[in-house]
Amino acid sequence: MSNRIFFHAHHAPIGAYASFTLGYPGASGGFDLELAQPPKEQVYVMMEQEDGGYYQALPFYGDSFDEGQWFTLAEPSPGHPEEDLLVRPFRQDEIKRDYRLGTDTWQAGALTFRLLSQVRPVPDPETAREEELQEALVPAILAELTLDNRNGSRPRKAMLGYQGSDPYSHMRRFRTEAGVTGVGQGRHTAIATLDPDVQAVQHRTIERMIQRMASGLPADNGLGKTAALLMEVPAGECRTYRFALCFYRGGEVTSGETMSYWYTRYFPDIERVAEYALEQYEPISRICREADGMLAGPKLSENQRFMMIHSIRSYYGNTQLLDWKGRPFWVVNEGQYKMMNTFDLTVDQLFYEMRLNPWTVRNELDFFAERFSYTDEVRFPGEERLYPGGLSFTHDMGVANALSRPGYSSYEQSGLTGCFSYMTHEQLTNWVLCAAVYAHQTGDREWLQHRLPILEMCLSSMLNRDHPDPEQRNGIMGLDSSRCLGGAEITTYDSLDVSLGQARNNIYLAGKCWAAYVALERILRSFGRTEAAETAAASARRCADTLAGQVKDGGYIPAVLYEDNDSRIIPAIEGLVFPYACGCDGALGREGPYASYIRALERHLHTVLSVEGGCLFEDGGWKLSSTSSNSWLSKIYLCQFVARRILGLPWEEAGRRADSAHVAWLTDPRNAIWCWSDQILSGLAKGSKYYPRGVTSILWLEE
Amino acid sequence: MSNRIFFHAHHAPIGAYASFTLGYPGASGGFDLELAQPPKEQVYVMMEQEDGGYYQALPFYGDSFDEGQWFTLAEPSPGHPEEDLLVRPFRQDEIKRDYRLGTDTWQAGALTFRLLSQVRPVPDPETAREEELQEALVPAILAELTLDNRNGSRPRKAMLGYQGSDPYSHMRRFRTEAGVTGVGQGRHTAIATLDPDVQAVQHRTIERMIQRMASGLPADNGLGKTAALLMEVPAGECRTYRFALCFYRGGEVTSGETMSYWYTRYFPDIERVAEYALEQYEPISRICREADGMLAGPKLSENQRFMMIHSIRSYYGNTQLLDWKGRPFWVVNEGQYKMMNTFDLTVDQLFYEMRLNPWTVRNELDFFAERFSYTDEVRFPGEERLYPGGLSFTHDMGVANALSRPGYSSYEQSGLTGCFSYMTHEQLTNWVLCAAVYAHQTGDREWLQHRLPILEMCLSSMLNRDHPDPEQRNGIMGLDSSRCLGGAEITTYDSLDVSLGQARNNIYLAGKCWAAYVALERILRSFGRTEAAETAAASARRCADTLAGQVKDGGYIPAVLYEDNDSRIIPAIEGLVFPYACGCDGALGREGPYASYIRALERHLHTVLSVEGGCLFEDGGWKLSSTSSNSWLSKIYLCQFVARRILGLPWEEAGRRADSAHVAWLTDPRNAIWCWSDQILSGLAKGSKYYPRGVTSILWLEE
Repeated sequence: MSNRIFFHAHHAPIGAYASFTLGYPGASGGFDLELAQPPKEQVYVMMEQEDGGYYQALPFYGDSFDEGQWFTLAEPSPGHPEEDLLVRPFRQDEIKRDYRLGTDTWQAGALTFRLLSQVRPVPDPETAREEELQEALVPAILAELTLDNRNGSRPRKAMLGYQGSDPYSHMRRFRTEAGVTGVGQGRHTAIATLDPDVQAVQHRTIERMIQRMASGLPADNGLGKTAALLMEVPAGECRTYRFALCFYRGGEVTSGETMSYWYTRYFPDIERVAEYALEQYEPISRICREADGMLAGPKLSENQRFMMIHSIRSYYGNTQLLDWKGRPFWVVNEGQYKMMNTFDLTVDQLFYEMRLNPWTVRNELDFFAERFSYTDEVRFPGEERLYPGGLSFTHDMGVANALSRPGYSSYEQSGLTGCFSYMTHEQLTNWVLCAAVYAHQTGDREWLQHRLPILEMCLSSMLNRDHPDPEQRNGIMGLDSSRCLGGAEITTYDSLDVSLGQARNNIYLAGKCWAAYVALERILRSFGRTEAAETAAASARRCADTLAGQVKDGGYIPAVLYEDNDSRIIPAIEGLVFPYACGCDGALGREGPYASYIRALERHLHTVLSVEGGCLFEDGGWKLSSTSSNSWLSKIYLCQFVARRILGLPWEEAGRRADSAHVAWLTDPRNAIWCWSDQILSGLAKGSKYYPRGVTSILWLEE
Repeated sequence: MSNRIFFHAHHAPIGAYASFTLGYPGASGGFDLELAQPPKEQVYVMMEQEDGGYYQALPFYGDSFDEGQWFTLAEPSPGHPEEDLLVRPFRQDEIKRDYRLGTDTWQAGALTFRLLSQVRPVPDPETAREEELQEALVPAILAELTLDNRNGSRPRKAMLGYQGSDPYSHMRRFRTEAGVTGVGQGRHTAIATLDPDVQAVQHRTIERMIQRMASGLPADNGLGKTAALLMEVPAGECRTYRFALCFYRGGEVTSGETMSYWYTRYFPDIERVAEYALEQYEPISRICREADGMLAGPKLSENQRFMMIHSIRSYYGNTQLLDWKGRPFWVVNEGQYKMMNTFDLTVDQLFYEMRLNPWTVRNELDFFAERFSYTDEVRFPGEERLYPGGLSFTHDMGVANALSRPGYSSYEQSGLTGCFSYMTHEQLTNWVLCAAVYAHQTGDREWLQHRLPILEMCLSSMLNRDHPDPEQRNGIMGLDSSRCLGGAEITTYDSLDVSLGQARNNIYLAGKCWAAYVALERILRSFGRTEAAETAAASARRCADTLAGQVKDGGYIPAVLYEDNDSRIIPAIEGLVFPYACGCDGALGREGPYASYIRALERHLHTVLSVEGGCLFEDGGWKLSSTSSNSWLSKIYLCQFVARRILGLPWEEAGRRADSAHVAWLTDPRNAIWCWSDQILSGLAKGSKYYPRGVTSILWLEE
C-alpha cells in the first residue's frame, strides 16, 4: 500500500517562484523561495499536551542545533533527554491528512492544521483590473490552526513556527501598524496573523523557548534562529487561528535582463503582503476551498485525482510572473533544474495554461519569437556540407533568474550527440503547436495574423530539416542543425537512450512534425496562403505515410527509422494530442485522411502495452521505451489521455494497475520528499524532481 | 614553525559587508557577501602548464561535482582519472605568499596572483564629496594575474574563475557597453576585466571547460555552475591582466528598520561597480599599495605586523555602511555571530575608528543614544527590592541585517547569570568612554555639548549601580539591572568563567568604571558642571582606592572582589587605555592622583605574568584569566599596549615569545580557515571567528 500521508507537497502562491513545502517528515520542508528544492527548515506545528507536560507536534522538525554553544564554547552535549521530552511528534497512526487541490489538512488529536493555496486563472496583466491581479498574485498562502480544547480543564498553548534557511538574513518578530503580528526571516519569508491574542516568540531552539516560557521568562531573544506564533486556548473552548505564510523578493532579481517580481507593484514589502492576505482572508480562502471542487467530478479515480492535485501544486511552485520594463514576463521554472520556460515543457504545460491562463502561452511565444530564436543551417550526419536551415527557438530562456543571451538557451551545447545537445527541430515544432493550440482555443486571430510570418518561416525551416531536395522529403527530420557543430540534435527525452533521445528519424518527433504540418495547413489555408498550405499538407501526408509504412511484423513502429533500431516507444502516439487540441480533429479519424497512420499507431500502442519486453514495468506502470528504465510521468499522463480519448484504449484492470503504480512511485518514501517528480527510473525519482510538467494530467478532465 | 602561507584572509571592500576570502586550501574561500563565513566556493587561479598538457592551479579548489549527472542519471563515477589530470595544484613548496595590508600576492612558477584591497579613511558621508565616497566605498577589490611566458615557445592560457555559493541565482557571463567582460553569480558577485583579449567561459566544471576548449568547442554553457575569465599569453611575452572582484546587494536589505547599502547611491548594479572599479584601477590600486606602507615602521616585529594586517583585514570584512532614510548608519558586524555594532566591540574598535573614521564613532554613539538605549532600575543580588537605576545602552543593534526593536539588543536575555545576560553597566561605561575619546581626539566640542545631558544621565546611572546610598559607594558596580529579572549582569567576556564573566564587583569592569569617572570629571568640569565633576572625581577616587586596597599578599588583585574569588586576570589593566586616549594622562602618573592604583596594577601585571599558575599558557601566549583557558586576542593586544606603553613593561624574550605563540594560534591549520579569530581556547579557535575586534592592535603604532 502506498504512503498517502507523509509526502511533501507544494503549497504555492501563484507566480512567486515560492512554496511552503510540507508533508515529508523531519526538518525537510518550509519556505522555499527561489530555491527549487525542499528547504530543510524546522517547521513547528504543535500544541500543548492536555496536562501541559510537553508539546505534541506534527513531525515536520528534526534535532535542533543550539547555536548558544558557539558563544559559551560548551562541548555539544550528545543528547538533551530533558529537552527531548518537551516536544514529541504525534505517532504516525494518530495523524490523518486530507490532501486536496486548494487545501491540505492534517489532523491529530485535538489539533487541526490546514494550508490553503489558490488555484485560479492568472488574469492577463495587460488587461486585468489591478485588484484582481493583486488578489491572484499575492505572494502568500493561508493557514488555519484549530485547537479543540472543549474537553480541556486548563488553557492549552499551541505554536506555529519555523527556523528559516536563508544564509544571509536573520529570524525576527514584527508587529505592523495595521495590527499584524508576525515572525519571519529577513524581508523574505514570514508567518503572520491579525489575531490580537497571538504573540510572537523567538529563541535559539524550540525547546529553549518552551523552557523560558515555563520559567515565566520572556522568549524574546533576537539572536534566536527559531521563531513562532504562540496561541493559548482557554479551557472549554475550540479556537481556530488564521495565518498568512508570506514570501517576498523585492527589487531587481534577474541578470541578463533586469526584471522584478510583478507583485512588487502591489506590495512594497512583506509586511504589506501579510496585511493584505489577512485582510482578504475570507475571499481568498473561499477561492482555495472552491479549488477543491475543480477535480471533484465522478469520472476520475482516486489515484488519478491524487496525481492531478500533486502535479498541479508542483506546477504552481514553479511559476513566476516578472515585470520586464513594464511588460509581463511569465515563467515556469523547470523544477530542480531551475531553467526558465524550457520550451519542451511549455508545450506539455500548454493544456493547463490554455485552461487557466491562455495569455501566458502567447506571452511565452512572443518572447521566444522576439528574443529566444535563431536561424541556422543544417547538415546530414557525417557530412560537412551545409544546406539552408531556418528559424528555430532556444531550449529555454535562462536558468535560476539568469536570462540567457539572445538567441541562446542556457542548456544547449554544440558538439554533442546526447544530453545537452541542441533541440532545434523539436523546439521548432513546439512553437508551431503552441501557436496553433493557443490561436484555436482562444480565437485570437489578430495575434495569429501578426505571427503568420513566423509560422511561414517555421514551415520553411521544417521542410529544410527534412531534406534539401523537395523530391526526397519523407516528412520527418533528416538533417541536424549546424549549431550542433557536427553533433546530433536530441529531443526533450534527453536522458533516455537513443530510442527517444535522438531527434533525427525519431518517430516521437515525427509524430509532432506531422501534427505541426497538419496545424500549419489549417492556419495557412485560413489566411488564404493556399500554396503554403498545400505544401504543409503534402508534408503531413508524407510523414504519416512514412510512419505507417514502417510497421514491423510484430505490430509496432521502431523508435528510430532507418538506423537499425528496434525499440518500442509509447510516445509514438504523443503527437495525436495536437490535432485534437487545435481544431484538426478531422486528421484523427479512422476513416480520415491519415487513417492508415492512426490505425498504425492504434496497433502500435496495443502491441507495446501487451507484449512481453514491451512498455510496461513489472508493477504495471508505463515504460515509455522498451529499452529504457527511465519513464516520465508527465509524458505518461499525456499518452494515457491520447490512448484513451483518441485511440479508444479501454481503461480497465491494466490501466488501473498502471495508475496505482504511478501513485506508488510518487509516494515511495525515497521519492516523496520531492513533491511531484517526472523522471522515474525503475520506481526511483532520479531526475526532474520538484517539477511542473505533470499538469499534462489536466487533459484527463476532457475525457 | 607556524604556517605563513595557507591561511584565509579577508580581502574586503569597505562598508560592503563582503570579502573575497582566500588563502586556505581547498574549496573553502571565495565571494562572501553577508555570509560571515568562508563561503566554500571553488576558486580557480591557474595557468596552462608549459607544454599545455594540463593546468597548474593555486590550491583554492576541491573536487568538483558535475551536475550533468542530474540530467543524464548516470551514476556518479568514483573518480575521473583523466579529468583529474587537467588541473593540478602547485606543490606547496612551489608557492610563495607576500601578505601585506593592502596587497596579498601569491607566486608560483610563472604565475603571480595579487589581490588589492583599500585601507583608507571612510569619508564622513554627511560632509564628503560624492567622488571621494564613491571611490572609498566601491564594493569591489582589485586583482592582477601575471603570466610570465617570456621563456615559453607556445602561447599559454590562464584562467581566473569560480563556482559561486548563492543558493538562489545562477552563474553567468556578461559584457557591458563600456567594454567590461565578466563572469558572475546573479546580480551579487562578479569577476570582471576591461581587457579586450580576455574571454568569459562557463561550463559545469572546470575540467569540462578545459576539455571543451581542447576539442575546439565553445565553453559557453549557461547551465554551467563554473565560470572563468580566460587569457592567453603569446610565446615570449609576460602579461599582467587586471580584474575587479565585485559585490552588490541592491534594494532594501534590513528588517526592523528599512535600509539599503550606501554604495547603491553611486552604483545601480554590479556591472556599474565593475566598470567604475576598472576605470579607476590606477588610483584605487595606488591606494591599496600605499596601505602596504602604513605598517612599515621599524618598531613593529614581523609577528606584530602580521597580526595587525590580519586583524585589520578582518575588521573591513565586517564593515557595512547603510543608508537609513538618508542618514548614514555605520555598522561593524560581529564576525561569525553577525551582530550589528556590538557595543563592547565598538569600544575596542574605537582606537582604529579614531585613527581612520572618527565620524563612525559619533554615528554609533548617536544611534545608541537615540534608539538603542533604555532606562532601568537596579537591585542587589538575592534581593527583590528595586532601586533607581538609570540610562544604559543595548549590547548591540541587531543581528544579520535584522535591526532589534528600540531599546533592546538581539543578544540580551533576562533571567540569566551567564552568557546572554544583560551587559547594562558595561555598555554604560562604553558610551561614556567612546564619547570621551571621540570628543577629545576630534575636538568636536559642539557634539559633546549636544550630548552633555546624556553624559550627565550616564554619571547618575553609574552612581546608582554602585550603591543607592551615596555614603556606601565604593566606586564599583554593586547592583544588577532590573532587566535581568533576578539574574546577574555579565561583561563582554561572556564565555569566560566568573573571573571575567560576572560584572558585579569585577575588577575588569571596575577599571573601566574608574576610567569613565575620570573622563566624566574632565568633561563636566570643562562645561562648568563643577558639582557633577566633583561627584565623578569622588567616585573615581573611591574606585581606585577600593581596587588598590584589595591587593593580596601574592601581589595581585583578585578578579572579583568580596566574593571569595581568587582568579588573576590580565584585563585588570585594560581600563588604563582610556585616560591615555581621552586626554587624561595625568590620571596615569605614578605620582599622580591615582598613584596607588596605578602602582597596584603595575604590580598585579608583573605578578600574573610571572608566577606559576598565572596568566601565561605553556607556549608563552597570554592567558587572560588564570582560571580559564579561553583567551581573546583582541583584548591581549589591547592589554599588551597598556602593559608596554602605560605600565612600562619591557618587551623582551617573554614578550616576543607571546607574540610568536599568538601568531601560531592564528595560523594553526585548525584555525587558519577563519581569517582572524578572537576567542582561542588553548590554541584552538572556538568562537568569535572571522572577527573584527583585533584592530585593537592599531594601538601598537603609538608605541
